[in-house]
Amino acid sequence: MSPKITTELLKQLRQVMKSPRYVQEPVQAYIVPSGDAHQSEYIAPCDCRRAFISGFDGSAGTAIVTEQHAAMWTDGRYFLQAAHQMDNNWTLMKMGLKDTPTQEDWLVSVLPEGSKVGVDPFIIPADQWKRMSKALRSAGHDLVPVKENLIDIIWTDCPQRPCKPLMTLDLSYTGVSWRDKIVALRSKMAERKVLWFVVTALDEVAWLFNLRGSDVEYNPVFFAYAVIGMNTIRLFIDGDRMLDPAVREHLQLDSTLEPEFKIQVMPYGSILSELQTVGAGLSPKEKVWLSDKASYALTEAIPKAYRYLTPYTPICIAKAVKNASETEGMRRAHIKDAVALCELFNWLEKEVPKGTVTEIIAADKAEEFRSQQKDFVELSFATISSTGPNGAIIHYKPVPETNRTLSVNEIYLLDSGAQYKDGTTDVTRTMHFGTPSAYEKECFTYVLKGHIAVSAAIFPNGTKGHLLDSFARSALWDCGLDYLHGTGHGVGSFLNVHEGPCGISYKTFADEPLEAGMIVSDEPGYYEDGSFGVRIENVVLVIPAETKYNFKNRGSLTFEPLTLVPIQTKMIDVNLLTQKECNWVNGYHQKCREVIGAELERQGRHEALRWLIRETEPLVRV
Amino acid sequence: MSPKITTELLKQLRQVMKSPRYVQEPVQAYIVPSGDAHQSEYIAPCDCRRAFISGFDGSAGTAIVTEQHAAMWTDGRYFLQAAHQMDNNWTLMKMGLKDTPTQEDWLVSVLPEGSKVGVDPFIIPADQWKRMSKALRSAGHDLVPVKENLIDIIWTDCPQRPCKPLMTLDLSYTGVSWRDKIVALRSKMAERKVLWFVVTALDEVAWLFNLRGSDVEYNPVFFAYAVIGMNTIRLFIDGDRMLDPAVREHLQLDSTLEPEFKIQVMPYGSILSELQTVGAGLSPKEKVWLSDKASYALTEAIPKAYRYLTPYTPICIAKAVKNASETEGMRRAHIKDAVALCELFNWLEKEVPKGTVTEIIAADKAEEFRSQQKDFVELSFATISSTGPNGAIIHYKPVPETNRTLSVNEIYLLDSGAQYKDGTTDVTRTMHFGTPSAYEKECFTYVLKGHIAVSAAIFPNGTKGHLLDSFARSALWDCGLDYLHGTGHGVGSFLNVHEGPCGISYKTFADEPLEAGMIVSDEPGYYEDGSFGVRIENVVLVIPAETKYNFKNRGSLTFEPLTLVPIQTKMIDVNLLTQKECNWVNGYHQKCREVIGAELERQGRHEALRWLIRETEPLVRV
Repeated sequence: MSPKITTELLKQLRQVMKSPRYVQEPVQAYIVPSGDAHQSEYIAPCDCRRAFISGFDGSAGTAIVTEQHAAMWTDGRYFLQAAHQMDNNWTLMKMGLKDTPTQEDWLVSVLPEGSKVGVDPFIIPADQWKRMSKALRSAGHDLVPVKENLIDIIWTDCPQRPCKPLMTLDLSYTGVSWRDKIVALRSKMAERKVLWFVVTALDEVAWLFNLRGSDVEYNPVFFAYAVIGMNTIRLFIDGDRMLDPAVREHLQLDSTLEPEFKIQVMPYGSILSELQTVGAGLSPKEKVWLSDKASYALTEAIPKAYRYLTPYTPICIAKAVKNASETEGMRRAHIKDAVALCELFNWLEKEVPKGTVTEIIAADKAEEFRSQQKDFVELSFATISSTGPNGAIIHYKPVPETNRTLSVNEIYLLDSGAQYKDGTTDVTRTMHFGTPSAYEKECFTYVLKGHIAVSAAIFPNGTKGHLLDSFARSALWDCGLDYLHGTGHGVGSFLNVHEGPCGISYKTFADEPLEAGMIVSDEPGYYEDGSFGVRIENVVLVIPAETKYNFKNRGSLTFEPLTLVPIQTKMIDVNLLTQKECNWVNGYHQKCREVIGAELERQGRHEALRWLIRETEPLVRV
Repeated sequence: MSPKITTELLKQLRQVMKSPRYVQEPVQAYIVPSGDAHQSEYIAPCDCRRAFISGFDGSAGTAIVTEQHAAMWTDGRYFLQAAHQMDNNWTLMKMGLKDTPTQEDWLVSVLPEGSKVGVDPFIIPADQWKRMSKALRSAGHDLVPVKENLIDIIWTDCPQRPCKPLMTLDLSYTGVSWRDKIVALRSKMAERKVLWFVVTALDEVAWLFNLRGSDVEYNPVFFAYAVIGMNTIRLFIDGDRMLDPAVREHLQLDSTLEPEFKIQVMPYGSILSELQTVGAGLSPKEKVWLSDKASYALTEAIPKAYRYLTPYTPICIAKAVKNASETEGMRRAHIKDAVALCELFNWLEKEVPKGTVTEIIAADKAEEFRSQQKDFVELSFATISSTGPNGAIIHYKPVPETNRTLSVNEIYLLDSGAQYKDGTTDVTRTMHFGTPSAYEKECFTYVLKGHIAVSAAIFPNGTKGHLLDSFARSALWDCGLDYLHGTGHGVGSFLNVHEGPCGISYKTFADEPLEAGMIVSDEPGYYEDGSFGVRIENVVLVIPAETKYNFKNRGSLTFEPLTLVPIQTKMIDVNLLTQKECNWVNGYHQKCREVIGAELERQGRHEALRWLIRETEPLVRV
């Protein structure tokens, strides 16, 4: 992987930063955030402005360009990747390390007095704007909205915004009709005394209307906004997607409906002016509900006194708690996904010793096996297929320049998942196709102990996920080891593989309490730069736990793994496990054998079945 | 304990809330916070305004009185006590429970439109003012400062503010002279480019000048403020305390000193006007550093543009990291304290079966034994001496009305500590003088497992204490149990028994990272209302940990118990312990036997020594 040469681009950007054609006043710094106008994590090619200007294309990062400097903030998952992809024009700011300045502090330290810092108001979330603007103002600078995106100006071959056909999801998948979701939303709005709700996140629009799209790779969403009033529904969406008879039927666009369920379809680009009209027409005490992560531009469209901002929207919270249809769908999707992985690992075991399997071939093979499963739609994120030192690059994606051949001498880490019409998967397994070293087994076993500690944890109803994060690290900490990422994220139901408002991380203190029906990942790891990476990830469902006592009648919760793929016992140092941990592994493997074994049998995949049975032999502690 | 009858007092308060003599405009609600003008947790009798108006005298709670309602917010430690001490005029607001409204939400729900909410600006911290004021304003109400304290007006027999003599601490106790502390403070001020630092917390004034007082029971502090400039030191303090030759010598008041170390002594009451003068004389870019918990009145004295507010002051942070002299002092204090407790428990074991020992007698006896130790000054908090159901009242203090007799049939919980000139102690032991039930042992053992999980935890440098809180709960959670308080607090060195900026709690996300030299308590518990309470508390020192590996060269930390008092093995269900936990208990008891045994021997306390030896017999797992 050679870095992108950005000297010329940065020169052009610095020119437009001063050009009266594009900015009212010259800006001394320009911020290029990661997201799109919907604050999406995964973005369409036309929105990859930060990757365009810097070369760094990881999923998280913020670039800031000043007249003299260009700096990139990203987190521990991407330190190595960003360092590889960026040229010498760029300074890497390693977030989470003690000595790394915040963007605000850095700007204050490098800017000349009374500087203007520009940003696209559609791209920056309102809460970030507020924090950044305050910090800059107190140091004598100004954060200013630059209407035209300055990257788009210099990006002459910028791709078009996608506008692909929609897919409708019926009740058997969603469990709740879009009308009932609107009714529930309006009742939350009534509770909080708000008259309007603005849906800005793409997965929230998709969830609300039981529609899916493919405008963004890996995330089955489509570019749209919605504005829900107590008696009106406005959907802002482009293209001829609304001409599709199945979509018209699903949304009942041609039926005679009660007016409060009649959907008005409007152009995507008209959201700002429509919101401004809503904002201008409000009377005192009439409030508009927005996420505090909605863009600064849309937030500003509503006068401050009329805004009702929350970190999580009622849609985000409702979406996180899966109903019975969604949970069953997720179970089915995970069974199919496990079948594909059993096939893959069985195939790898035979092929790797031949020395012909590269990381890319392995990733493609994983996709091939998945695509054979019913209702497969696409992958849920770029497959992390990494062997040896590449495994230490936490969000690695193999490309021809880095593509390594799997061997019997190196650890192989595969973090992959898919979108099926009935659910989203995300699973990491770390394998050795030869004989792992004692040290590799030791590290793997600490990670496994952390994985089990979270998966088997019992905790009171109302506990926030961040209180469980240290459980995942305890065994590593005991030996002076750790990993620089969170332990888990919410997972959507045939939606985004990363979703709020719950998670398991030492960083997330604004997470909502875990409740039965929520689905998160459990994925501790250990990474040794230049050497190897270990991660063990299951998707787990929050379920009620039976406990001996019940303090204050609060009830308890625990997790049930939805992912049912064997954890390679060859990598486990059994003597480092407690009997309880050993029992957990054996119980888990027993369930894999029963559930996935039955499905492999049904699909006539006998070789993979034999592999599964061998890989799920019980551990015995000496 | 019968509740205080507050009908007449509330009537009087409601009258002055409307009286033009005391308020510019009538206030529809009046807030009575817990603290004094220094935001102290422990307060002088003249500052116990919330207890005066409500009857509830726990250490934490906020009262709000409106024309129709009177409500008290307090946390889980005090639910039972507050319910007992308050009459029917009061509504108890149980903080931490899901359905309890915040003070702001409650006010908004009960106040008529456009209300004024009054509060004493010297009592309310600036950060609370800001939050409360914003919430009220957005609902159309106003938070207003009421200069005269309205409780003081109706409190006709309010005691005088104490003004007791000072004690000087020499270098052998403090390790650092007050001059060197001023130098270090000024260097922190220079780093942040601030010209003035305002010391508002009483323990910070005491620590900075290496002085102690006795104005507040249990906390060796004195009423004072200090304002430190780059070349000036102003100490605001009342009375003839500055006439004491030892104090004059200690502060070098009569020496010819470099002007930057010359202390100007000023009246306590002149702080506001002096600060206003400082504030009025500032040029642009000249900043004044205050804690964001300083009172609204003092904070407002500095124009907003000149304020530099931080959650923790540099004094608070420096004070938390104990130097070698302080650590050695704390060790000595804990050895003496353990001697006193061995004597006490040996005495209780003989006396309890006779049926003559009440909670108050036991508490007095504990004080008697402590007072026999060298450099004993006073208790560090009101002794919690509680048996049977009283043990479930988390911050119980025995009074004649509740005083229960210890027996061989009930669990006894003693949470007590002392101020010695060389250190502060805080220890809880839960004992049974007969035969505990299997259930009592089970609960005790879960609490012990939590205690050990924290005490033996190894974690990376830079870890915040709140990330360790769940370790203390895990064994309880497994059985559906929990406790409604944090796990640990910072402990001062011959200073406040509760101090910031570190702690171990699921609630504290603003805590500073733990570092070697910090001292905290480790005190999980379990409480069964109406039945019994269990708590096991040691004071522990943060020390570097030796680990097998050292990820990113960060280094690791762990805890060393300073408290060395046997944990009653009779209460332990050994079969619920892992071998590792069993080894921890045996290692701890071995150290108690060695260290405390030697001191008991030295002091010729042979009977207590025999008790210690018996109580530290190793546990054996079957």
